[in-house]
Amino acid sequence: MTTTPRFLAACRREPVDRPPVWLMRQAGRYMAEYRAVREKAGSFMNLCRTPEWCIEVTLQPIRRFGFDAAILFSDILIPAEAMGAEVSFVAGEGPRIGNPVRDEAGVDALRCPEPEEACPFVYETIRGLRSELDAETPLITFVAAPWTLMCYLVEGGGSKHFERTKTLLMGRPDLAKRLLDKIVAYSARHAAAGLRAGAQALQLFDTWAELLAPADYAGWALPAANEVFRRVRAEVGPEPPFIYFSKGSAGQLPVLGAVEADVVSIDWRLDLARARRELGESKALQGNLDPLALLAGPEATRERTRAVLEAGGGRGHIVNLGHGILPQTPLESVDALLETVRGGTP
Amino acid sequence: MTTTPRFLAACRREPVDRPPVWLMRQAGRYMAEYRAVREKAGSFMNLCRTPEWCIEVTLQPIRRFGFDAAILFSDILIPAEAMGAEVSFVAGEGPRIGNPVRDEAGVDALRCPEPEEACPFVYETIRGLRSELDAETPLITFVAAPWTLMCYLVEGGGSKHFERTKTLLMGRPDLAKRLLDKIVAYSARHAAAGLRAGAQALQLFDTWAELLAPADYAGWALPAANEVFRRVRAEVGPEPPFIYFSKGSAGQLPVLGAVEADVVSIDWRLDLARARRELGESKALQGNLDPLALLAGPEATRERTRAVLEAGGGRGHIVNLGHGILPQTPLESVDALLETVRGGTP
Repeated sequence: MTTTPRFLAACRREPVDRPPVWLMRQAGRYMAEYRAVREKAGSFMNLCRTPEWCIEVTLQPIRRFGFDAAILFSDILIPAEAMGAEVSFVAGEGPRIGNPVRDEAGVDALRCPEPEEACPFVYETIRGLRSELDAETPLITFVAAPWTLMCYLVEGGGSKHFERTKTLLMGRPDLAKRLLDKIVAYSARHAAAGLRAGAQALQLFDTWAELLAPADYAGWALPAANEVFRRVRAEVGPEPPFIYFSKGSAGQLPVLGAVEADVVSIDWRLDLARARRELGESKALQGNLDPLALLAGPEATRERTRAVLEAGGGRGHIVNLGHGILPQTPLESVDALLETVRGGTP
Repeated sequence: MTTTPRFLAACRREPVDRPPVWLMRQAGRYMAEYRAVREKAGSFMNLCRTPEWCIEVTLQPIRRFGFDAAILFSDILIPAEAMGAEVSFVAGEGPRIGNPVRDEAGVDALRCPEPEEACPFVYETIRGLRSELDAETPLITFVAAPWTLMCYLVEGGGSKHFERTKTLLMGRPDLAKRLLDKIVAYSARHAAAGLRAGAQALQLFDTWAELLAPADYAGWALPAANEVFRRVRAEVGPEPPFIYFSKGSAGQLPVLGAVEADVVSIDWRLDLARARRELGESKALQGNLDPLALLAGPEATRERTRAVLEAGGGRGHIVNLGHGILPQTPLESVDALLETVRGGTP
């Protein structure tokens, strides 16, 4: 007898025995096993480019915690690299792009290659993972949402205000449009190839949606994200659920319902019950425990996980954090979160 | 014939000939005159402690741009220093507190002195400014909201996640409560003394409200801010308007109406017209131009200022940025903003 895995059922708002749970950045530095592989790999990009290690670190949290979904270990800048960006990671600083895109020539130079040729290691990882993961644990692939990838491409790295990117958007909308179109084209290809290789769900990360005024979000970031979803849907058919994560997006709530995803993933600054009321019953919701709660220890984690379960209302809810798990998170807090989800009545 | 200054009238939602305008951090590094005084002062804290210079830099933007309100030049950490914090500013890094408050002993050690004795320079500045400013240009004084000051006191400086502060709040609510109570007590004294010295309005800056989940905001940050407002109101009477600014607070919108201020100042990530609908007609609104729009030049500034004027609806609206003006802002963009407000029909 085969049943739909809990995670996929919840994405489709089908009944589940309990809400599924996974954590953004669940394969990460809070686990000693991850740190050991990371050290062996030398550079972060080297880790991302080596299927054997990517498979291993993707599986580590599944083995240790039994999460209800696995998420491909990769980086949102891998597609940027495929498009021609010179990506590196500076210790303690985060990503750096050596040739930021700031003018016509920069936009023209961006490529839209065949993903399986440009980053074969991603799809090899996905195929390897599918043969390792059991039927109960679906595999999620991901890309950055176009606006978020544009932020890194233009700014050349992380930034407090992303002023070059926003200035480009506001002062050179023509060029911003051309750049976004190119990002959409490759991101959709990259995501569709991941699903064809065996991933069973797709998450778009729109981390920098929070930088935008609602009118800019509705005019730029949201349509670009939707265009990726539409292209991928056209390529892969109706099956795999799409998840849209945006950070700090409470101001975008009035238009979030227009996102062409099955699941809306929200951060901890937006009340889950309120999101449910405003978005209606057409979307599943994912989130939204404050990642800092886990640093306050198992007791605070249990209490706040119960509140998230209650606000989520059981059906059409995937328990997750409101943002990636922090490196200094104690494992006991992750255990406490999981015990609460598994033992708790929503 | 005396008329109510435009700024004070708008705070009270009285009719005005046009919306008043001032900018957060209008006395700042984007002006060459400010940079000259800042250099003369040596350290930032030395500037903050010298009434002659504080008066000068407060007046510079009034002289150059004729804003409808002046805001005391000071720093939100001046009250922290009065309470016993060892405050310094590290170039390129921001504030640093040498003796962060992280345990019972730290909380116990905080003082609640007489403000005029602890920081006489603040009140000397206010008195000096009132004798320099004309009747059309009210003077605003300010304090950090208690939660925001708590963030700096506990963390010991700026931070991405303010994890020590949030962990204290979640893991040691008893101690967090005691700390917030002490901050409330001194902040209210400091603010009331500023109004008694001649300031005509008070703004609370709750910059780090955006770190909190709605339940934590409603349970901690908002009641603490309201307690300051209540104490100050009890001391100074009904006259001076109170303004509450919180950054990234779209998620807090359902409870923002409970803030005991006359004016709610919002950032650019929340639609002004939506805030108006949700908050009703009992509050004036302040904001909310994206500070980055000014970096895109005068044309983008004009276009976006027009949108803000329209969303603000004319009455009970004070034009401002959604956050402090950035040091790299061109003066022509500030001119364009002001021309639009002065010449535009809302």
